[in-house]
Amino acid sequence: MPLDRRQAVFLESLRRFLRRSALVNLRKLLTKVRPQDFPPLYEELTEREQLQLFQFLADKDPELGASLLVELPQGQGPALLRRLGPDRAARLLEQCADDDAADLLADLEEEFSAEILERMKPEEKAAVEQLLIYEEETAGRIMTPDVLALPETMTVEEAIRTIQERGRVEMSFYLYVVDQRHHLVGVLSLRELLLHPPTVRLHEIMNTDLVTVRTDTDQEEVARVAAKYDLLAIPVVDEQGRLAGVVTIDDVIDVLREEATEDFYRLAGTSEEERIEPSVIKSARIRSPWLLAVFIGDLLAGVVIGSFRGTLEHMVGLAAFVPIVLAMGGTTGNQSAIVIIRGLATGRVREGEYVRTLLRELGTAGLLGFLYGVLLFGASVGMLWWRGLAPDPRTAVLTGATIGVALALSMMFATVMGASMPLLLHRLGFDPAVSTTPFVTTSTDAVGSLIFFLLATWVLLPMVR
Amino acid sequence: MPLDRRQAVFLESLRRFLRRSALVNLRKLLTKVRPQDFPPLYEELTEREQLQLFQFLADKDPELGASLLVELPQGQGPALLRRLGPDRAARLLEQCADDDAADLLADLEEEFSAEILERMKPEEKAAVEQLLIYEEETAGRIMTPDVLALPETMTVEEAIRTIQERGRVEMSFYLYVVDQRHHLVGVLSLRELLLHPPTVRLHEIMNTDLVTVRTDTDQEEVARVAAKYDLLAIPVVDEQGRLAGVVTIDDVIDVLREEATEDFYRLAGTSEEERIEPSVIKSARIRSPWLLAVFIGDLLAGVVIGSFRGTLEHMVGLAAFVPIVLAMGGTTGNQSAIVIIRGLATGRVREGEYVRTLLRELGTAGLLGFLYGVLLFGASVGMLWWRGLAPDPRTAVLTGATIGVALALSMMFATVMGASMPLLLHRLGFDPAVSTTPFVTTSTDAVGSLIFFLLATWVLLPMVR
Repeated sequence: MPLDRRQAVFLESLRRFLRRSALVNLRKLLTKVRPQDFPPLYEELTEREQLQLFQFLADKDPELGASLLVELPQGQGPALLRRLGPDRAARLLEQCADDDAADLLADLEEEFSAEILERMKPEEKAAVEQLLIYEEETAGRIMTPDVLALPETMTVEEAIRTIQERGRVEMSFYLYVVDQRHHLVGVLSLRELLLHPPTVRLHEIMNTDLVTVRTDTDQEEVARVAAKYDLLAIPVVDEQGRLAGVVTIDDVIDVLREEATEDFYRLAGTSEEERIEPSVIKSARIRSPWLLAVFIGDLLAGVVIGSFRGTLEHMVGLAAFVPIVLAMGGTTGNQSAIVIIRGLATGRVREGEYVRTLLRELGTAGLLGFLYGVLLFGASVGMLWWRGLAPDPRTAVLTGATIGVALALSMMFATVMGASMPLLLHRLGFDPAVSTTPFVTTSTDAVGSLIFFLLATWVLLPMVR
Repeated sequence: MPLDRRQAVFLESLRRFLRRSALVNLRKLLTKVRPQDFPPLYEELTEREQLQLFQFLADKDPELGASLLVELPQGQGPALLRRLGPDRAARLLEQCADDDAADLLADLEEEFSAEILERMKPEEKAAVEQLLIYEEETAGRIMTPDVLALPETMTVEEAIRTIQERGRVEMSFYLYVVDQRHHLVGVLSLRELLLHPPTVRLHEIMNTDLVTVRTDTDQEEVARVAAKYDLLAIPVVDEQGRLAGVVTIDDVIDVLREEATEDFYRLAGTSEEERIEPSVIKSARIRSPWLLAVFIGDLLAGVVIGSFRGTLEHMVGLAAFVPIVLAMGGTTGNQSAIVIIRGLATGRVREGEYVRTLLRELGTAGLLGFLYGVLLFGASVGMLWWRGLAPDPRTAVLTGATIGVALALSMMFATVMGASMPLLLHRLGFDPAVSTTPFVTTSTDAVGSLIFFLLATWVLLPMVR
């Protein structure tokens, strides 16, 4: 990717200092770049340079190294750790936020990950292992356990002192108040704390109307709750209501972006892995299964059409209308599918509304099917006549009517598929975005062909013969 | 939508108090619900009850009314204001955050909006009008101008006092430091402030490495910057670098969700307006233009196929393979389109990489086209033979080869369309998600049919005749 001038100069200095092993200069240079701006530079380095740079950082300034490591695009962090070996990897991960360290370790092979953990400081190891217990994509996994919990009996003055004494706590804008057994009982913002006299106790001023999630809450649900209530951080509690950690807004934003991207890719029958490894062969491998599904489904459509050979031979002009009937069906079905998938993701379509939603979609499709059926009737009569595909006006009109009805039916069928697939998947606990659109397109092609040729053979053929 | 038991009880009390005009009870009841949980209850009320409730709130407790008003789903807030009339609307909007008030007013008819503004308190009117100057979907429009700006010469002690004295400032976790002419020169977190001795001046401890956006920055870019740098708020400056306001993280999250939803709906050729007005007729009207595009495109495919009538009559079995050639092309093209659309949205695909990206997609499609071309060759030879659609093995093999090549070419064509369309739209400054997928599907159907029948007529027909 093209770098701007400033980046190019930076990269040149970086390389020069690396060649000369000018450690002091290197360190000074790297503190000048925001960690979030580092990845495009990293990607310009050779593998050798990347390794050399992080070896140096792991040995001399693991904190700086960690801040750069966590910003690397998905997949590249683990790859780098593998090359660095367990000792240096451990030095770097000790300096990462616990949730970031857990994420990186989870992407590594179990054996190597265990080797790294063995080499980490005991308290860091314990904190990270604690997170790894939770399943991926749950609140427990994306939370940071490093949260400031203050006893409810503490005074405002004591609380302020505690904050001032305490080292780095990840983004602490809310203060959580707990009882003796570490149950979460209230919350306070730093600003509210400042507004009260020093001797007041926290339980007198804390807000008790708490929004919490549990350690096993799905990360998508966590993001939804945070977005709904405009929270900067959501406290995470265990089954007993004890404060286990906090999910901060930056993680929520990452989840929202990730989930939207995931749904996008899934819609097209490909996967977000495409982002990570940009080789043509890998891309082809990822996209292939969905193409295979379409291949099989549409081969079936071919078998259907092939079995109506007699009808086709009698009215070869019918073949011209197969694409429009199938494409209109597929498009309508996918419109329904997408409206419902997104509705489920944003919470607009709720459980218990399945039947109403389905009927609504069917109503829309019925209306559109009627309109476009009439339109296609007109267009096909004209075309059959104009292109000389029908022997006489009566045949043209009858054929056009059949094609129009086939279009409407195929659109209704596609909508039933498009609307019920995501609802069904959601009901069964799967991601409704998975495979819906290729499936809708393909099944519409097979069933739409069948509807089309059945109508032509049973209704039309006897009339025009 | 189904309410849970608690909501049902709540709704019943709400209605009873409304009927009896039991104002005190009503108010007490409403303060018990979180504003974000209010919309499902609101939607259960009759129009009359909705009006009555907000008339009461506008007169007796506009602050509570405003907090509920801003949470109503898009479209419902403006509808309610229209029914309330300009006086009561003005009372409620005065109590909204300025950016929320501006949003609501922008959705109303100009004349009515002006009437409301006339009736608002002068200082509120001025603040909202100031925001309305900025274009929709820019930083200026979504920012709140109500930001705490401290002079750089102030001491820590004075700063803390200012914060304590100042009323509600929207989510103030960062403190912005300005020079004499209100230029933004630094930033401090509330926590950093607490960690320094009282007599230190702000310019000595502030961070000068600022991430800012301008009032005319697109909201999508604002969200990208906030997400990248994990910021809770981004300061917005005017052309002269003066602090104009701040975009807070809750607005960023709304932007991210809105933009993802918008892209989703656009992919399917429908619109997010579907969320607002759930009538079948409205839905059909929104989805119809895209169906019309597909209709016209695939009618064109029909004209193409119809014009090869001679070829079809000679080899009626070809018709069976039209759907698979078109569907595989459409699927491949849409996979490319979606990978690129999302890549552009998340910043993975950058300007200046257009050609590389296009070639990469073409490489992937070439590989997949080759694989599935060979597969279809085998499958079609078998099918032609098995269904008796080819007179002899030689014809079956030649026909199968033609179909396989047509598939590969059609997949490559679709990929060029799918990859270049979003890149072109992006280059021209349009949203790359607009219309791409219906366009790719439709053009592939027309051109794929042409490729298929040209090959059959020019290459195959002379050989098998």
